[in-house]
Amino acid sequence: MKLKIALGQMEIIPGRPDLNSQTMLKMIDEAQAADCHMVIFPEMAIPGYLLGDTWEQEAFLRDCESYGQDIIAASNHIIILFGNVAVDWEKKGDDGRIRKYNALFIAHNGSLLGGDNFPYPFRIKTLLPNYREFDDDRHFFSLRKLAQELQQTPEDLISPVTVTMAGEAINLGCILCEDGWGEDYSTQPITALQKKGVTFYINISSSPFTLGKNNKRNRIFAKQAATAQVPLIYVNNVGLQNNGKTIYTFDGASTIYNKKGQVVYYSHPAFAHKLDMFELDVATGADELAPVEVPRDDQIDFIYQALVYGIQKFTSAIGMKKVVIGISGGIDSAVAAGLYAKALNPANLLLVNMPSQYNSETTKNLARQLAENLGCLYTVLPIQQSVDFTIQQIEGAPVINPETGAAYHLKLTPFMTENIQARDRSSRILAAVAAAFGGGFSCNANKAETTVGYSTLYGDQAGFLAAIADLWKYQVYQLAHYLNQEVYHREVIPQGIIDIVPSAELSFDQAVDEGKGDPIQYAYHDYLFRSFVQWWNKSTPEDILQWYITGNLEEKIGCQPGLVKQLFTNDIDFIQDLERWWNQFTGIGVAKRIQSPPIMAVSRRAFGFDHREAQNGVYYTRRYRELKEQLLDK
Amino acid sequence: MKLKIALGQMEIIPGRPDLNSQTMLKMIDEAQAADCHMVIFPEMAIPGYLLGDTWEQEAFLRDCESYGQDIIAASNHIIILFGNVAVDWEKKGDDGRIRKYNALFIAHNGSLLGGDNFPYPFRIKTLLPNYREFDDDRHFFSLRKLAQELQQTPEDLISPVTVTMAGEAINLGCILCEDGWGEDYSTQPITALQKKGVTFYINISSSPFTLGKNNKRNRIFAKQAATAQVPLIYVNNVGLQNNGKTIYTFDGASTIYNKKGQVVYYSHPAFAHKLDMFELDVATGADELAPVEVPRDDQIDFIYQALVYGIQKFTSAIGMKKVVIGISGGIDSAVAAGLYAKALNPANLLLVNMPSQYNSETTKNLARQLAENLGCLYTVLPIQQSVDFTIQQIEGAPVINPETGAAYHLKLTPFMTENIQARDRSSRILAAVAAAFGGGFSCNANKAETTVGYSTLYGDQAGFLAAIADLWKYQVYQLAHYLNQEVYHREVIPQGIIDIVPSAELSFDQAVDEGKGDPIQYAYHDYLFRSFVQWWNKSTPEDILQWYITGNLEEKIGCQPGLVKQLFTNDIDFIQDLERWWNQFTGIGVAKRIQSPPIMAVSRRAFGFDHREAQNGVYYTRRYRELKEQLLDK
Repeated sequence: MKLKIALGQMEIIPGRPDLNSQTMLKMIDEAQAADCHMVIFPEMAIPGYLLGDTWEQEAFLRDCESYGQDIIAASNHIIILFGNVAVDWEKKGDDGRIRKYNALFIAHNGSLLGGDNFPYPFRIKTLLPNYREFDDDRHFFSLRKLAQELQQTPEDLISPVTVTMAGEAINLGCILCEDGWGEDYSTQPITALQKKGVTFYINISSSPFTLGKNNKRNRIFAKQAATAQVPLIYVNNVGLQNNGKTIYTFDGASTIYNKKGQVVYYSHPAFAHKLDMFELDVATGADELAPVEVPRDDQIDFIYQALVYGIQKFTSAIGMKKVVIGISGGIDSAVAAGLYAKALNPANLLLVNMPSQYNSETTKNLARQLAENLGCLYTVLPIQQSVDFTIQQIEGAPVINPETGAAYHLKLTPFMTENIQARDRSSRILAAVAAAFGGGFSCNANKAETTVGYSTLYGDQAGFLAAIADLWKYQVYQLAHYLNQEVYHREVIPQGIIDIVPSAELSFDQAVDEGKGDPIQYAYHDYLFRSFVQWWNKSTPEDILQWYITGNLEEKIGCQPGLVKQLFTNDIDFIQDLERWWNQFTGIGVAKRIQSPPIMAVSRRAFGFDHREAQNGVYYTRRYRELKEQLLDK
Repeated sequence: MKLKIALGQMEIIPGRPDLNSQTMLKMIDEAQAADCHMVIFPEMAIPGYLLGDTWEQEAFLRDCESYGQDIIAASNHIIILFGNVAVDWEKKGDDGRIRKYNALFIAHNGSLLGGDNFPYPFRIKTLLPNYREFDDDRHFFSLRKLAQELQQTPEDLISPVTVTMAGEAINLGCILCEDGWGEDYSTQPITALQKKGVTFYINISSSPFTLGKNNKRNRIFAKQAATAQVPLIYVNNVGLQNNGKTIYTFDGASTIYNKKGQVVYYSHPAFAHKLDMFELDVATGADELAPVEVPRDDQIDFIYQALVYGIQKFTSAIGMKKVVIGISGGIDSAVAAGLYAKALNPANLLLVNMPSQYNSETTKNLARQLAENLGCLYTVLPIQQSVDFTIQQIEGAPVINPETGAAYHLKLTPFMTENIQARDRSSRILAAVAAAFGGGFSCNANKAETTVGYSTLYGDQAGFLAAIADLWKYQVYQLAHYLNQEVYHREVIPQGIIDIVPSAELSFDQAVDEGKGDPIQYAYHDYLFRSFVQWWNKSTPEDILQWYITGNLEEKIGCQPGLVKQLFTNDIDFIQDLERWWNQFTGIGVAKRIQSPPIMAVSRRAFGFDHREAQNGVYYTRRYRELKEQLLDK
C-alpha cells in the first residue's frame, strides 16, 4: 500500500496564529488537491516557538486554540498533523499558571485522534530542552511531570496513534522532540515506541539552524530508523524567530529516512518555504527508494545562506526597508555591506564613510571603491570638527563645587577621545542619517571584538542588528572570499580591504599604512576566545594555563601549531595576555553585551540568550593561581 | 534542652567562592567562640546563585568543591549547614553536561551527614524554579528527575537528617526550596518531612527582594510550621546578584517561626550582613518566645532601601566610584540624583544640565537648585550648537548614487531632531563627561517610559544602570516625597520639580510653562501598562477592551474610578489610545529594551530577564478584533 504524504515545511511567523493558520489551510488545500492521505506541519506551527513570556497571556492561548480549531475543522478528507500549544485550563503548571503543553495534534474527519492510553486528545513533547536558547520548562509542562502526577512512567504514556489511511490501520509513532543536542531527547521516545509496534515515525520539530546541526541530527535519526527497521519522517519549519538578544533562522531541511536509515528525501534548498509530497510504501518501509545526497551544513556557504536569509526576514519582520552602513574601509563593514546588498536591493543601502584625522587615504579610498563595486548610495560625513568641538566644550565647561563655589575643568585623555570618535560616528551621525534615510543602521562587530568588548558602547557597538557578530574574524575573511568568488563572481570587496591590517584607526598608534592595527592577534585570539564560549568544554584560564604548561594548548583550542611560541617570548607575556583578555571578556565585555544589538546566531553558542551571563566580577580559580605561581617561580 | 544556633545571613558575592568561603570561615569562628551548636548559611553560599552559564565551566565547579572542602574541614566542633553546588562527575544532566545539584551540605566533625535514604552525602533542592529570573532546570538536576532515575518518588527521597547536638539526637528537616511563589515549592518538602518526624525545619534560601515577598512567605511558612507543630528556621543571604539585564538585591530577612507559626525572630534591618544567634528550646518548640513584629515590605520605604543598597553594591561590584547624572529639572532625574547622593558621597556625583532652545528657564533653574540642595558637583553643557551642526552637516552632505552619479540630500524632520537632541546629550556629552570624571552615567528612565519605548536609544535610554526603571511614575513621585520627608528631612527635590507637568522638552509642543508635556497620561497609563507586564493575569488589548465594555476596567487595572470617561470622549478615542501604546509596547519598545541598560528590580516583573520578550510583530487576537468591530458598529 502506498501512502501519499505531504510535508508542510512552512514559514512560521512567531506570534501570528492568524497568519500561520492561513498558511496551513492553503497547504492543506494543496495537499488535498493532490490526493494526499496526510499532511504534516512542524512543531508549534500555529503560535511559533520563541515567544518569550507571551505564553503567559491567556488571551493569546485562547487565540491559538481557536485557530487550531480551524485546522481541525479542515481535516475532513485528510489527516493533519500539526504542532500547537495545548492548554489544560483546569490544571496548573509549576509556576501556578494555567498548564500548557508543547503538543502534537492529529486531526481527522474534524476531530482529534491520539487519546488512547493518554489523558488528552493530543500528544506532548517528551523531553523539554532547557539549554542554549531554550526555556521549555519555563512555559510547558513536561511528560515527565505528567507521568509523575499520573503515577506512571513516561514510557507508559508513549504509544503509537492508530489512524486509518487508504483503508488500512497504520500505527504512527508521533514524536515531538529535540533533534540534535542531547541524544536522549530523540532516542528516548523512539526507543519507547519501538517496543509497541510502529508503521512509521513522524517527528515534528521547530529547530533553529546552527552550523553542523543537520549532519548530527542525520547521524542520530538514521541510526534510530535502522535499529527499529522503521522509516522516520522529520518535518521542520523555516523562517526567523528570536529571543530578543539572539536571532535564529530556521532552515527546514525536512528529511525522510527509510527503514535502513538511509536519507531518501532531503528538502533543499535550505530555508525554502514549501510543501513537498512523497509516496511511502508501507510494505517496504521506503526501502526501494534511492538514498539522496545530504549537503554538509558546517561550511561558509551555509553561513552565507543563513545570514542573507536572516537579514531579509528580520528587516521584513520589523518593517525595515532601508539600511545605513558605516563603512571604514575595513573587512567587517565591507562583509556586512556585501551581505546586506544581497539581502536587500543595493538601492536601499546607504553606505557612509566617516573619516577623522586618523583615517588614512588608503581606507577612505577602499571605502569609496566598495560602495561603487556594490552599487550602493554613498556619502562621506567627516567627524573631526564635531569631535574637536566636543572635546573643547567638555574641557571648557567649569564644573562647580557648590560647597566651595570653586570651579575646575575636566580633562579628556587620548583613550577617551577614541571613544568620542566612535560615538560621534554611530550616535551622532549614523542614527540620524538612518532616520532621514528611512531605516536603521547596522552594527558590524565580529565575535572576537564582541567577546572582549573591543568596541565602544553607543559607538561601533550600536545598531539595529549585529548580523556578523556570531562570526570569528577568520570566518569574516572566509565570507569575504566567498562573496567575491561564489556570490558576486567579481571583486566587490576590494583585495586591499582583505589584505590590510585590521585597525580601528582611532589614533596614530593604529596607522594602517605603517602596518599598525588592533591589539587582537586574530590567528591566536579567535581560537582562545572561542574556547571560552563554545558549547562543549568551555575553557577558563585554569584550563588554558594547564594546556600551555602541558604543551598542547594549540591542539586544544584549534589554532595553528607553533603560534604561541611565536607570539609570546616568555611565560609572563603569555599570562599577561591571557589575563588581559579574560578580564575584558568577563568584565567590561559583559556590560557591553548587555546593551548590544540583537545578534544573528549561526554558531553553537551565540552571545545573548544562548550564552547567558551575569555581570559579576572577574574571577580566577584557586587552581589557576597555584599553576601561575608555580610557573612564575620556576 | 536548649540549642544555640547561629544564622549566617551573609553577603554572598556571586562568582567568588574564594571570598564567600572566607566570610563563612570568619562567621564559623564567631559562632564557635559563642558556643553555638550549629551555624546555618544560605543557599549557594559558596558560588552565589545567579551566575548565568558560568555553571558550565568545569574549572569553576571544581573550585566550588574545593572551597566547600574548607568549610567541611572547619566543622570539628560545630555543625555547619551550607548551600553549594554539588557535582556528580560520573553522571550527566539533561544537556549532556556533568550533572550538578543545587545542594545543602550538613557537615560535622570534618565529614558530611545527610546520606541516609539518599544516594549522596548531601540534600538537594526539591523543586527547581523556572520562572521569573530563575533558570534552575537549565543548570541543575532536580529531585524529581533523580527520583525517576532511581524509580522512587520524590517523597521517598525526602527524609530528616539526624545529628547529635548537645548530646541528643535531633532530626533536622533540611529544606532547599522556593519561599514565596508557587506554594507547592515550599509546602511539598515540608509536608513530606512532617510525616517522618522532625525536631525542627531548616530552610536555606537565596531569595531576591521584590516588593511584598516576605509578607507572603511569612503567611505560607507560618501556616506550615503551625500545621506541623514544628519550628522553622529560614536563612537568606544579602548582597546583589544579577542576570545581566536584571539586577536583584537580596534582603536577608532571616526568620524563625515557632511551632505555633509565630514569627519569634526576624532579622532586621533588611539588607544587613550579620551573624545572629538564637537559643532554641527543643522541648517547647520555641513556644515560650514572644512573637516579634514583622515590617510590611510592600511600601515605598522598602523601595528606597532596596535601591540605595542596590546602587551601592552594584557600583562597588563593578569598581565604579563616581557617577554622572544628566538632570533636566524633571522628576525622574531628580529622584535618581537624590538616590545616588545617598548611596554614594555627593562629592562623587557630577550633575549635568544640557539645555537646548526648548528648555525653559523654569527647568534650568530647578536643575541648578537640585544640585545645590544635594551639594553635588554641577556643570551646564548646552547642546544647541552641536545639534544645529549635526542637522546642517547631514542635510548638507551629498548622497551619491553611483549608478547615475546624481547627488541628493537627506532631510531631517522635527521628530528626528528630537532624537538628535537626546543622543547628543547622552552619547556625545554624558558618556565623555563620565569618562573624564572617572565613572559612568546613569539612565533615569521610569517603567512607564520603558514599557512603551518613550525614550531615545543611545539617548535618554543609555547609561550604565537604570536604577528607577522598575518604578511606575506614581512610585517615582512617592519616592520624591519620601526622599524629602523621611530621608533628607528637607526639600532637596524642589517642589517645583514635583509640581511641573512631566515633559521631555524636546520641542515647543512640550513647553512646560504652557502646561504642555509628555503624551503619557500617567494617572491612567501607569496602570494600563502595569496590567500588560505584571506577574499575574497579564492583560492584552482583548482583556482591556472586554473590561472597558463591561465597565470594570478601572477596577481591574487599579486606577482611579471615573478616569477613563474623563480621558476619552468616545470609543474610537479609547481604542486608538489602547492600540497606540500596545503597538509601542510590543513593537519598538521591545527593540529598545533589548539594548537598554541593566534594570534594578523591585517589582514582581522587571523588564529584562524577569519578563522575557521576543522582538516579534504587534498582534491582536481574533477575539479582540471581533470585540472592536462590535463596539464600533454599535
